[in-house]
Amino acid sequence: MAAWGVPADPIPATVTWRRGRLRLLDQRALPERVRYVTCASVTDVVDAIRRLVVRGAPALGATGAYGVALAASADPSPAALRRAAGRLKAARPTAVNLAWGVDRTLAAAERSGAAAALVEAEAIAGADVAANRALGAHGAALVPSGARVLTHCNAGALACVGYGTALGIVRAAADAGRAPRVWVDETRPVLQGARLTAWELRRLGIEHTLVADAMAGTLMADGEVDLVLVGADRVAANGDVANKVGTYGLAVLAHHHRVPMLVAAPTTTIDLATATGAGIPVEERSPDEVTRVAGVRTAPPGTPALNRAFDVTPARLVTAIVTEQGVARPPYRRSLRALVAQAASGAAAEPIRSRKLSQ
Amino acid sequence: MAAWGVPADPIPATVTWRRGRLRLLDQRALPERVRYVTCASVTDVVDAIRRLVVRGAPALGATGAYGVALAASADPSPAALRRAAGRLKAARPTAVNLAWGVDRTLAAAERSGAAAALVEAEAIAGADVAANRALGAHGAALVPSGARVLTHCNAGALACVGYGTALGIVRAAADAGRAPRVWVDETRPVLQGARLTAWELRRLGIEHTLVADAMAGTLMADGEVDLVLVGADRVAANGDVANKVGTYGLAVLAHHHRVPMLVAAPTTTIDLATATGAGIPVEERSPDEVTRVAGVRTAPPGTPALNRAFDVTPARLVTAIVTEQGVARPPYRRSLRALVAQAASGAAAEPIRSRKLSQ
Repeated sequence: MAAWGVPADPIPATVTWRRGRLRLLDQRALPERVRYVTCASVTDVVDAIRRLVVRGAPALGATGAYGVALAASADPSPAALRRAAGRLKAARPTAVNLAWGVDRTLAAAERSGAAAALVEAEAIAGADVAANRALGAHGAALVPSGARVLTHCNAGALACVGYGTALGIVRAAADAGRAPRVWVDETRPVLQGARLTAWELRRLGIEHTLVADAMAGTLMADGEVDLVLVGADRVAANGDVANKVGTYGLAVLAHHHRVPMLVAAPTTTIDLATATGAGIPVEERSPDEVTRVAGVRTAPPGTPALNRAFDVTPARLVTAIVTEQGVARPPYRRSLRALVAQAASGAAAEPIRSRKLSQ
Repeated sequence: MAAWGVPADPIPATVTWRRGRLRLLDQRALPERVRYVTCASVTDVVDAIRRLVVRGAPALGATGAYGVALAASADPSPAALRRAAGRLKAARPTAVNLAWGVDRTLAAAERSGAAAALVEAEAIAGADVAANRALGAHGAALVPSGARVLTHCNAGALACVGYGTALGIVRAAADAGRAPRVWVDETRPVLQGARLTAWELRRLGIEHTLVADAMAGTLMADGEVDLVLVGADRVAANGDVANKVGTYGLAVLAHHHRVPMLVAAPTTTIDLATATGAGIPVEERSPDEVTRVAGVRTAPPGTPALNRAFDVTPARLVTAIVTEQGVARPPYRRSLRALVAQAASGAAAEPIRSRKLSQ
């Protein structure tokens, strides 16, 4: 069933290709129900991305790739393919993996046709899980034994094709016997922390406690956070990190309390073409996500609301960026470029060893 | 109807004495419905306080006072009065006004009986509105024209007997033609910002925009916040401020961005008997408030959650504390003591003049 999970992976596969269609785990229904949405066309895929059936930068990369495969099987003409690719890339602007997965699969389709597009999409999906396992191992070496890790949003298996990035690190640390404990930010407005991260950690048997986003400060002030660990939607060439709104506030708090701020990002999330965070488009979503919770209106009718979905954390507040190729440290312009080149060359990752983190 | 509001105050009175009973505006039902809970006994009052029918430090002060008046009318014996006072004070531990209102009314009852207790409670309630109006005028002088003010939780008329503390300042600034605009933190878990502050500002015709709590960082980074303005549940003698959880995170962010951090607190909220914030008890509430929103469960069943209701902001992160007697500035140990003494002596407040705030 779960094409890219390990046998008996406790988290269901998010993105799978089945009988010529794309099957997405419907993350809007979690944690109440495990249900799926099947996409038979590019329109279906764009709709699923916009409505957050699927979310998370790595998962969006594979979804975009399969979207092009669907487009190629329907109409492999260059004009149609380019139109489909444009629509897929425009579905959400911030996560760079979406455009990356689309462009890579588009190139395969243009070069060698629909079958090649599907092979490319399958390769992207398979590589995601492998990369996250390597990323997890690199990151776990940075997690002290018994560490209390604060995370925001969901950078777990549900945000990827499998295994997870930030939660992949937690998972690898747990597997290595380091017994991490996780503070889970609920992550308003869409509650990915409460709905998805808490669900994953429960399935994985990893100790966790849910908190409102505004509680991070008091936890850090009381010395109850050893590490902040988040995913990323896009990392600029200089190490600026776009991630779920609230990440920047956590980074400022972590800096104030000398708590290390770790970002988990496969090299596919690193965008060397964007020089700094100022060049990253930040998606603004419907105010309804803020004025309502789980469908229930909380604010008075007509209340104006702003719903910026992401924020940008400057590189100077980031202690390290963990990729599947190894750990990038400041100055990021150099370290990120080296890791991306290493990924492109298919070189072996650096040996993993335990290291001490200092902020 | 509204005993302590000005005529045609757009915000209904929160705490009123009617025909021998205490009538509380039921803040759990807002913004959907304006409804009231009537308390005929100390048990009713304790229950209403615990369940957040009434909340906000100044409103709790008056509620506690009327609670003692109810107790005195039922059984004015010293033992019964002391028992009732103890129960009322234990209903919620952080806001010092509750204990203050109870103790003041208890002393009146012990001295001169049930009728005197009611006179004292009425005096406390009336003084609250007058104090908030003076506080608003002092604070408005610190709000630049067109200022974009970020507030957290609800420190409006609904948190008081009337007029409001932090929102009283906004209100006074608006009345003075300074056209403040307000960023309203929704304030999870109980959503006082979305439910109460947005509702008040709408009724007052003051421009506002609701945001998720985690958006404060990106707003400040983009230079869209000129002032952070919050209320307080208790101010220690050294100027440490206990307020709704999330206030401390805002103070750290404000400090990082050199945005002034203003606290609105009538002198009844200043607790000179508590030397520093470390001595302020911080209430922990039911985890259900975090795992559910507006009655809807958001996290998986059985998810552990922590629900610390308040946090403590150290005095060094507070630019100024606005009271009805004037504005306290560092060093707070001296300035707060002077303002409390001034309140006790009934001396005239310092003249109000426009001043520049620097953080």
